Amino acid sequence: MASRRAGAKTYEQVGLAAWQATEKVNAELFTLTYGAIVRQVLADYEDCVPEANAKLDAMGRSIGGRLIEEFNAKNEQQRCVDFRDTCETIAGVALRMFLGVGGHCADWNADHTSCLVVMETNPLADFVELPERYRDLSYGQMLCGVIVGALEQVQTRATCEWEKDALRGGDGFAMRVTLVGQIDTPYPFDD
Amino acid sequence: MASRRAGAKTYEQVGLAAWQATEKVNAELFTLTYGAIVRQVLADYEDCVPEANAKLDAMGRSIGGRLIEEFNAKNEQQRCVDFRDTCETIAGVALRMFLGVGGHCADWNADHTSCLVVMETNPLADFVELPERYRDLSYGQMLCGVIVGALEQVQTRATCEWEKDALRGGDGFAMRVTLVGQIDTPYPFDD
Repeated sequence: MASRRAGAKTYEQVGLAAWQATEKVNAELFTLTYGAIVRQVLADYEDCVPEANAKLDAMGRSIGGRLIEEFNAKNEQQRCVDFRDTCETIAGVALRMFLGVGGHCADWNADHTSCLVVMETNPLADFVELPERYRDLSYGQMLCGVIVGALEQVQTRATCEWEKDALRGGDGFAMRVTLVGQIDTPYPFDD
Repeated sequence: MASRRAGAKTYEQVGLAAWQATEKVNAELFTLTYGAIVRQVLADYEDCVPEANAKLDAMGRSIGGRLIEEFNAKNEQQRCVDFRDTCETIAGVALRMFLGVGGHCADWNADHTSCLVVMETNPLADFVELPERYRDLSYGQMLCGVIVGALEQVQTRATCEWEKDALRGGDGFAMRVTLVGQIDTPYPFDD
């Protein structure tokens, strides 16, 4: 795992420290609560899976836009220097801090604008089995939305989708995170 | 706080041990995820607050019916001896184990069939402020449903409602839990 700046702590060490510092609740309560959301969204959209996926993604974006504040507050924010640093921080620090799980980046493209964020386990999906009619459901799509929504708050436009999803026959859980561009913030002339 | 059987550990000690033994996630992630459910339910019922309250309650019952298994698995189940023991277990053990918060029973009636379960804090309601049009919303009603749903699985029919709700001007958070009766389980002649 890449170290965080020369001589500094690894992402994993930073993640474990942040995890220690956070308030927590029982993971199974979270898993079942998330399951209740997914069922509700499927019912709302009358089992239309693409619409349910989009709704879970939108809910995640909204949550991510707020979780970034907690993340910054608990991490004495060092601004990430580039997209590679950003993704290593998601995989090594944020997954630990919010879900209590380890993760790492893999399968970087040549110019370091796209990678897999591989999760050791996925608490959202514990005990879940999808019936055949939901085989296209991106059950954990909220998590992709959280990442996109959080990145938007730090002026980074990205896409995030499950590339490996054990609920759909994949070999574990991994999200493809791809940089789209920086979000220009207009200079606040009036301030 | 009442001790758990003569010579045994207090409810608080049992709760802290169960809390140590559970998998956890970040509380703010849970809080925001729960908030997403409440918003979705309000949208589904077009801001009809009584229907939203009922839906949150029903979701909670379903979750409680499953969480009881986790509770029993982590607590080398000693069956509660009576309703008083049951409520002390909810307040001292279950609130700690699932939400990481302390609680205690208060305001028992004379025959010990009704009490307040007082929560030290309520992670569901962190950062929440209800607009005036939602002043009758029982924001944390899912938690009441969880308790009722879990008790049903141990043959105990009870009601549970917020009696103090800081989101609605109350002095802290406390749920009134009242025994309705035991659920008769037909003898399984065919087994």
